[in-house]
Amino acid sequence: MSDNDRVTALGIASEGPLGERLEAYFSKCDEKLGFVPNVLKAYAFSPVKLQAFADMYNDLMLADSGLSKLEREMIGVVVSSANHCHYCLVAHGAAVRQLSGDPQLGEVLVANYRAAALSPRHRAMLDFAWKLTLSPDEMDEPDRELLRGHGFADRDIWDIAAVAAFFNMTNRMASAVDMRPNSEYHGMARD
Amino acid sequence: MSDNDRVTALGIASEGPLGERLEAYFSKCDEKLGFVPNVLKAYAFSPVKLQAFADMYNDLMLADSGLSKLEREMIGVVVSSANHCHYCLVAHGAAVRQLSGDPQLGEVLVANYRAAALSPRHRAMLDFAWKLTLSPDEMDEPDRELLRGHGFADRDIWDIAAVAAFFNMTNRMASAVDMRPNSEYHGMARD
Amino acid sequence: MSDNDRVTALGIASEGPLGERLEAYFSKCDEKLGFVPNVLKAYAFSPVKLQAFADMYNDLMLADSGLSKLEREMIGVVVSSANHCHYCLVAHGAAVRQLSGDPQLGEVLVANYRAAALSPRHRAMLDFAWKLTLSPDEMDEPDRELLRGHGFADRDIWDIAAVAAFFNMTNRMASAVDMRPNSEYHGMARD
Amino acid sequence: MSDNDRVTALGIASEGPLGERLEAYFSKCDEKLGFVPNVLKAYAFSPVKLQAFADMYNDLMLADSGLSKLEREMIGVVVSSANHCHYCLVAHGAAVRQLSGDPQLGEVLVANYRAAALSPRHRAMLDFAWKLTLSPDEMDEPDRELLRGHGFADRDIWDIAAVAAFFNMTNRMASAVDMRPNSEYHGMARD
Amino acid sequence: MSDNDRVTALGIASEGPLGERLEAYFSKCDEKLGFVPNVLKAYAFSPVKLQAFADMYNDLMLADSGLSKLEREMIGVVVSSANHCHYCLVAHGAAVRQLSGDPQLGEVLVANYRAAALSPRHRAMLDFAWKLTLSPDEMDEPDRELLRGHGFADRDIWDIAAVAAFFNMTNRMASAVDMRPNSEYHGMARD
Amino acid sequence: MSDNDRVTALGIASEGPLGERLEAYFSKCDEKLGFVPNVLKAYAFSPVKLQAFADMYNDLMLADSGLSKLEREMIGVVVSSANHCHYCLVAHGAAVRQLSGDPQLGEVLVANYRAAALSPRHRAMLDFAWKLTLSPDEMDEPDRELLRGHGFADRDIWDIAAVAAFFNMTNRMASAVDMRPNSEYHGMARD
Repeated sequence: MSDNDRVTALGIASEGPLGERLEAYFSKCDEKLGFVPNVLKAYAFSPVKLQAFADMYNDLMLADSGLSKLEREMIGVVVSSANHCHYCLVAHGAAVRQLSGDPQLGEVLVANYRAAALSPRHRAMLDFAWKLTLSPDEMDEPDRELLRGHGFADRDIWDIAAVAAFFNMTNRMASAVDMRPNSEYHGMARD
Repeated sequence: MSDNDRVTALGIASEGPLGERLEAYFSKCDEKLGFVPNVLKAYAFSPVKLQAFADMYNDLMLADSGLSKLEREMIGVVVSSANHCHYCLVAHGAAVRQLSGDPQLGEVLVANYRAAALSPRHRAMLDFAWKLTLSPDEMDEPDRELLRGHGFADRDIWDIAAVAAFFNMTNRMASAVDMRPNSEYHGMARD
Repeated sequence: MSDNDRVTALGIASEGPLGERLEAYFSKCDEKLGFVPNVLKAYAFSPVKLQAFADMYNDLMLADSGLSKLEREMIGVVVSSANHCHYCLVAHGAAVRQLSGDPQLGEVLVANYRAAALSPRHRAMLDFAWKLTLSPDEMDEPDRELLRGHGFADRDIWDIAAVAAFFNMTNRMASAVDMRPNSEYHGMARD
Repeated sequence: MSDNDRVTALGIASEGPLGERLEAYFSKCDEKLGFVPNVLKAYAFSPVKLQAFADMYNDLMLADSGLSKLEREMIGVVVSSANHCHYCLVAHGAAVRQLSGDPQLGEVLVANYRAAALSPRHRAMLDFAWKLTLSPDEMDEPDRELLRGHGFADRDIWDIAAVAAFFNMTNRMASAVDMRPNSEYHGMARD
Repeated sequence: MSDNDRVTALGIASEGPLGERLEAYFSKCDEKLGFVPNVLKAYAFSPVKLQAFADMYNDLMLADSGLSKLEREMIGVVVSSANHCHYCLVAHGAAVRQLSGDPQLGEVLVANYRAAALSPRHRAMLDFAWKLTLSPDEMDEPDRELLRGHGFADRDIWDIAAVAAFFNMTNRMASAVDMRPNSEYHGMARD
Repeated sequence: MSDNDRVTALGIASEGPLGERLEAYFSKCDEKLGFVPNVLKAYAFSPVKLQAFADMYNDLMLADSGLSKLEREMIGVVVSSANHCHYCLVAHGAAVRQLSGDPQLGEVLVANYRAAALSPRHRAMLDFAWKLTLSPDEMDEPDRELLRGHGFADRDIWDIAAVAAFFNMTNRMASAVDMRPNSEYHGMARD
């Protein structure tokens, strides 16, 4: 519990052991990143919730898609910038720096993606994500048509929407429980 | 595909058969509701995405929780009202009518939860969900303290946050792809 | 007064009898609807105010106009959706269901008119009403030109504006005094 | 029509003569103010609409009320400031200057009522009108209780709400049709 | 100090005498306007701050520029209208009246510049200032291109931006300390 | 000029040489930072404007004050976060990292100051700056009283307001002309 206390503002008793599959998942994180992301530790009080979260996350961000992994991380950072989500800006800002090999790209997407030197295609993708975040009730066919005009297939539009929608969930989860990012993210891929 | 066309504005080719587990899930829906909710048909182009969505949904809305199923549906409707999400207001407005046996409660939560005759506990729960939806960057310890003052445990706060955050995802998914609710919802539990 | 108490949050002493003309009006409501709408009961403490309200309402919503009665009710519902006005969404949502013979149209306009299958003309009409509701200071000649381009005459533009403006008044009146809709509306014209 | 053209952006043919009662009303305006307010000329294409508008306006702003005429004009100006309504700020700003004998009060209410030296009672009244204008969906019992705490009776709360709601209608009507204030207002009661 | 008390809500001890240059500046104001503007008195507790403010103000508003002095005052009033800044609306509304010889232009810009009869060039200039005030994060190349299309050179765009940005500073300074305009402004250039 | 082109989107011809004093200022920057901040290069087309900007900046951020230099930089970053100003977040985020010796503090203030572990005094200071940025029209005596309650003198309140107001100017200047931060900032004080 003291562990859990450290990663969010809530004190929640564990509902049971993680089980083999999730233990392996945590080990793999530790191996690849050098630590287990706090979002996973936050969900770990419930192995069922943690598994559901991890399954959705891994499919969205890592599975095959018309969008590259970097493009998906870019969407995540821009949504988190609109929502001012500290946890996600730190964790996924680091991912953008790492995947792009461009530390300044991570920083400009955290601040304001309109100041970034983006292709028109990427700009349209991020405009869609921004609008979906701040004015979901105004989304309409012209928004989809614009993406099609930049060469995105309908399946890509689904993925842009799904990643942007997912970060609107995780941003709110992080803000609601005051989720704190692992300190390791801050120095990652700075040069 | 023509099926898929009918439930969203996107045309996406199926990535493969649903498989036994999801077929059984669809049959169970059909049995209980008389139809398969369009949100599930929308995700069905990808069995992996459908499974991830169903797992998260079923845990959040149906598993054991300090919140009743009705309370979770109330949160879903109020978030969807803030986001003006047609699909979710229709589908989950019906659920509130059904679970509460009070058709007018469903309608008032669709319109404006502040006009409903709610206990202070429910009012605080829905105020939290509304704020988390519209001003996630302003969430802070006093918001959690308020819920604690109404008798919510930290685990309940997690669940309120998780349901509200989830509907912020599904509202945006529905708006982004123009998801259309099954017509059967409209007449359900009207008296 | 106890009557009045039930329809709003305010307790206001009657200023005198309704008089013949308003009594006849109430009887006609009762005959046609089976009840007297609570908004009329709310105003009834002052026969002068009630008469002024009824005169404006009846001219706007029922008199000859280039807009059909259904179109005027559609505007009323969309404005009330922007303002989250419970009373007006219930009462005028029912009117849309009844006048259109399409229960789902009522429900989608309550939720988000952008999700409705509307003619471009109706979409332009409702876009105008939405913008006039949320950003009145930004209205300008191009907004009127757009309506003209969809075949609306200047007299129709007046009527669209007048109905939208009127519901911006009644929405605020209803919210300010917590006006509660007659329960009879909920079940009306559901199939 | 060329007359009508000058007071709004719309060209609407007259539906018939004003009739004796409205002619007398216009004469009375002319006598008292030296001109007929353009809002009345704008409505004059329809004697029925003009009569309904005049009846509601005269009851709200001039009839007996727990609120003084100046207080009602103050509410009108503050609502119009929130909505940036040029017509109403000019016409009712002049009324505040005239009724108060304080030209600077008119100007500060046009700009920002929070900068005015107001009694706590007036400040509460105008806070209520401002909130009702910009966030009608958030009005609730505590807002009414606050007014009661400043000595307003429930009948006064009705009148505050009714005047604020009315200006939310007229502000939108003026913005929608580009209503232009009579030039005579500008110089009125400046010292 | 009692002097200072009168012009803002803060009580701040003087840090020393104004010195010759600033004394001369105050004398010149007195000569030209008949009074020293309260914003200068507010800054006068610190000769260094006053000098820095006066230097920036005088360069921006009075030095050579592709924008006329009236155009710069128009921008100032429109920004102050968006921010509802009482001090600046009073002081710079007077300046617009004076420089334009058109008292109604001052009043319409205070209320809503969209209701003014402006050249397309001036409308574009004020649209830029309004957007920069309310949505600075959305400024982008198309906004600058629009100004270029109306004949503004890049140096003019700098000046439009600089004046609008400056009033976003002074509006906030005035609001934060409750700066009160000199009463002399109210009657200036009214006819 | 090609230099100037690189730091903003505008092409503006130089109005003359910097002169000795500003040349010395640039040299000092180069010495202390290893580069001349692009904001200074952007203003350098006009020595008068550059001098006025530098004078105000240096007084506000570096002169004696009840606020430490770090506190002033914290305000700058929080205002820039509200306005999503890329230039200022990069340049002043670096300053917060450097002055505090705490790289994570810089990053959390860029994202959302509410997620930072702040003293109540600092939290109140930053709440004031945030509100002044986003709702300047709502500032009032209770906002100042709150700061006084945390031990801020009236002179400190002036300085908090002045720094927050100044960044509201520079944020808009940077956004309006697409000012681009020196790349050196990105790696500064990261560990």
